[in-house]
Amino acid sequence: MTVAELAAFVGGQVGGGGDAQVLIERVASLESAGAGAISFVEEERFLEGARASRASCLLVPEGTINAAGEFAATLIEVAHPKLAFALVAEALHPQARRAGEIHPTAIVAESARIGAEVFIGANVVVGERAGVGRGTQVLAGAVLGDDVEVGSDSVIHPNVVLYAGARLGSRVILHAGVVIGADGFGYVRDKDGYHKFPQVGAVVIEDEVEIGANSCVDRGALGETRIGRGTKLDNLVQVGHNVQIGERVVIAAQTGISGSTIIEHDAVIGGQVGMGDHARVRAGAIVGSKAGILPGKIVRAGAVVWGVPVRPLDEYKRLNAHFGRLPQMREEIEELKRQVRELSARLTEKPDTEDPQG
Amino acid sequence: MTVAELAAFVGGQVGGGGDAQVLIERVASLESAGAGAISFVEEERFLEGARASRASCLLVPEGTINAAGEFAATLIEVAHPKLAFALVAEALHPQARRAGEIHPTAIVAESARIGAEVFIGANVVVGERAGVGRGTQVLAGAVLGDDVEVGSDSVIHPNVVLYAGARLGSRVILHAGVVIGADGFGYVRDKDGYHKFPQVGAVVIEDEVEIGANSCVDRGALGETRIGRGTKLDNLVQVGHNVQIGERVVIAAQTGISGSTIIEHDAVIGGQVGMGDHARVRAGAIVGSKAGILPGKIVRAGAVVWGVPVRPLDEYKRLNAHFGRLPQMREEIEELKRQVRELSARLTEKPDTEDPQG
Amino acid sequence: MTVAELAAFVGGQVGGGGDAQVLIERVASLESAGAGAISFVEEERFLEGARASRASCLLVPEGTINAAGEFAATLIEVAHPKLAFALVAEALHPQARRAGEIHPTAIVAESARIGAEVFIGANVVVGERAGVGRGTQVLAGAVLGDDVEVGSDSVIHPNVVLYAGARLGSRVILHAGVVIGADGFGYVRDKDGYHKFPQVGAVVIEDEVEIGANSCVDRGALGETRIGRGTKLDNLVQVGHNVQIGERVVIAAQTGISGSTIIEHDAVIGGQVGMGDHARVRAGAIVGSKAGILPGKIVRAGAVVWGVPVRPLDEYKRLNAHFGRLPQMREEIEELKRQVRELSARLTEKPDTEDPQG
Repeated sequence: MTVAELAAFVGGQVGGGGDAQVLIERVASLESAGAGAISFVEEERFLEGARASRASCLLVPEGTINAAGEFAATLIEVAHPKLAFALVAEALHPQARRAGEIHPTAIVAESARIGAEVFIGANVVVGERAGVGRGTQVLAGAVLGDDVEVGSDSVIHPNVVLYAGARLGSRVILHAGVVIGADGFGYVRDKDGYHKFPQVGAVVIEDEVEIGANSCVDRGALGETRIGRGTKLDNLVQVGHNVQIGERVVIAAQTGISGSTIIEHDAVIGGQVGMGDHARVRAGAIVGSKAGILPGKIVRAGAVVWGVPVRPLDEYKRLNAHFGRLPQMREEIEELKRQVRELSARLTEKPDTEDPQG
Repeated sequence: MTVAELAAFVGGQVGGGGDAQVLIERVASLESAGAGAISFVEEERFLEGARASRASCLLVPEGTINAAGEFAATLIEVAHPKLAFALVAEALHPQARRAGEIHPTAIVAESARIGAEVFIGANVVVGERAGVGRGTQVLAGAVLGDDVEVGSDSVIHPNVVLYAGARLGSRVILHAGVVIGADGFGYVRDKDGYHKFPQVGAVVIEDEVEIGANSCVDRGALGETRIGRGTKLDNLVQVGHNVQIGERVVIAAQTGISGSTIIEHDAVIGGQVGMGDHARVRAGAIVGSKAGILPGKIVRAGAVVWGVPVRPLDEYKRLNAHFGRLPQMREEIEELKRQVRELSARLTEKPDTEDPQG
Repeated sequence: MTVAELAAFVGGQVGGGGDAQVLIERVASLESAGAGAISFVEEERFLEGARASRASCLLVPEGTINAAGEFAATLIEVAHPKLAFALVAEALHPQARRAGEIHPTAIVAESARIGAEVFIGANVVVGERAGVGRGTQVLAGAVLGDDVEVGSDSVIHPNVVLYAGARLGSRVILHAGVVIGADGFGYVRDKDGYHKFPQVGAVVIEDEVEIGANSCVDRGALGETRIGRGTKLDNLVQVGHNVQIGERVVIAAQTGISGSTIIEHDAVIGGQVGMGDHARVRAGAIVGSKAGILPGKIVRAGAVVWGVPVRPLDEYKRLNAHFGRLPQMREEIEELKRQVRELSARLTEKPDTEDPQG
């Protein structure tokens, strides 16, 4: 695409030193960009540093072209350069998409329903009555159990396992090694040991969810586990049975969510967070990395919480500062004890001098 | 099964409003249950809330049928309703079991010994001299290395990897992506870098162990790693080399256990716990989620510990409460300093008034 | 190998009770060793305890043969017995290596370049233009995407997934379930939700790196993710996009490293550590298990840090000791308040007795 076409695509204005007809072939960082590459300047204060970039085109914040002065690159002014860059990247680097094909080594049950333009890779297994929607790509070694449903234009990366009955929406991306629908962790103890509490529920992954490599989402015990539309999970995340995650939630790597916990829309969860069961993170709340949420705890809508157990971020910071001053507090207490002893001695002494009869 | 048959099966008494001859086909939660479903009421105080359930049958605690009054559902009184429900679920929903078959795409070494009624799924690989016991199910894409031994009636889910020589008992369940017998993490450093300390030991998973998706159990370095009978591990758990886990232990998701640590029978370990090497958790101890156990630490039998590093739960709670009051302690110290200064001033002043020559 | 040959191999001196011509076939622990086995005594103080070992040969620290007195085993004196033991183990138990072969069920693109003596196992998939160097072993079910490069004498364990374009050096070991080159976790939010920030960079694993089971290393977003020569990662480790890890770094299980963080040469990172993005751990630093490093934080070269957020170990220990004494500090403050009240009362009282006009 030419710079002019990209500008139209992202709704930006062209300016700067270059030529609006130059062809742009790829996205790149400011440092690595060369001829034919587009990069971006997120904020005006980074503009000067971007002057040395060899990118052919730069996406820059609104109102900066005039301020920029001479620039080797052609500039495109947009309201949100990083977002425009992401959109340009989607246009220039569309997800590699294989033509519709069922690889001869794939094992697809006769009762499975495979849509048009679906790619089924080498050694893929598709179980009885499973359905795979139009344009979906199921890559090598993935296993789709009986009665699994996958919508259209999804990508199932190699060696993913979908247990029987798992249901996925459209434009879902599951990275390699993801496991959806394994039994949740629930047992009932008697004198002899543990009996499995039934883990026979459903698991639903809605449209546009992306799940990182080797993450696990268990099926419901009796009810269902659900991950809402547009939610993004990083690698090695654990989602327990009956968890409900809303829409547009992001969860960073290695976080674990215990059974029946609810995370509402637009929450942002850091990495290595642990959530006890039956907790609730309300809409838009932010949970800091490594935080611990106790079972049953409710995090208020929009709250920013941190620590183990979680506290509002302000309080967490204040407590941490105090924690760092514990040795000083200790010394102050010792000093106070010394002073009080001295005062006490002086007070006891005085009557002796003042009142010799005492 | 009829309600009457189920009552006999769990040793309960029938009562309530329904018909002991009604057929029960499935387990369900109170909310989702309908005709043909059985659910349960764990404690008497939940009985009133269960009145609205459309379940055909409810398992209820002993002594509650009389208290319950009129109930649409047929009731079965049992000592432990949740346990009875788990047992009923096992009876009504037996683990899907495929008929004995070796899928034509499976690659089974000629020297492997495959028992009767064994199911070997698509693309499974079974190495030289490996043994798979009667009735075991090895699902698609699983890889059993040379000399692996699996007992009877076990289930190896898709894409599990058993390294050469791993030994599994009977009625073991390994969920998708589990890796048993990889090299432990041990090196010896010299000036050039790290040399692998030999990781040539054994790994043994005893009967009735269940291990969650994408968990890892390393082989021993020189000795063996062992997980005892009836122990249950959740997803993404890490078990290092030479770890010894006793019987009927439960370990929640994302917990990691360093080399040579011992966990004795009946311990309960929360999620995201970290244990240093050569630690020991004695029988029946409970370790709270996110706890950290230092190398060599011994947790006493039956103790309940929490925190990083672990402390008895009572102490942990008390310290946390104090931690939350640090700002107040800080203020109290400041107030004490002010008061002591004032007292000191008053005491110093007095001699001046009393003793004008001073 | 005979004891005499092993002694020459590790540069040690033979002594003790046995015969330098006895054949040694395997390594073993002191406890399990029998005839034909070699074991080691790491420090002189363990020598007495080793007397009961039935090993045919023991590697012992320099200067201990004379001190040892009579010993059933033949002794080899070396500067660093554990290191010598590791080297002997490499010699006696060379990594099982399969003869060059492409298994008939492997699917290897015609454009792939497969070196001499390469083993490609059952159901392995090798993509277009991929290269596999001499003597490398790619075990069952591994998937190498298009344009992947693997050097020589590496071992790719079963069900590993290398995304398109991943580059591995020589003598690399990837354990089962490892995923290299999945998309990093980067999105740009607008009013409708999250758009993927381009994840189109490279991922490079240098020579002699070993990565534990089910660990994940994401590709760069625009730049590259790199793991340096001789670095060792344990199981279930997460390495985010654009992370740079130096040479001879060790990282224990379940640690997670956020995007663009740098770990320099020879650092040692414990288990379950979390590192925020754009942090930097300088050369030779040691980060304790479960530590948390804030985004942008720099850990000084050679520092030993611990805790959440990290502090120098000495300070961490001191603060933890103070933390444990919080209840006592609380009591001391209460006692001080009582004493100050009493002093104040005495001081207020006194003027009354001394100064009746007051």
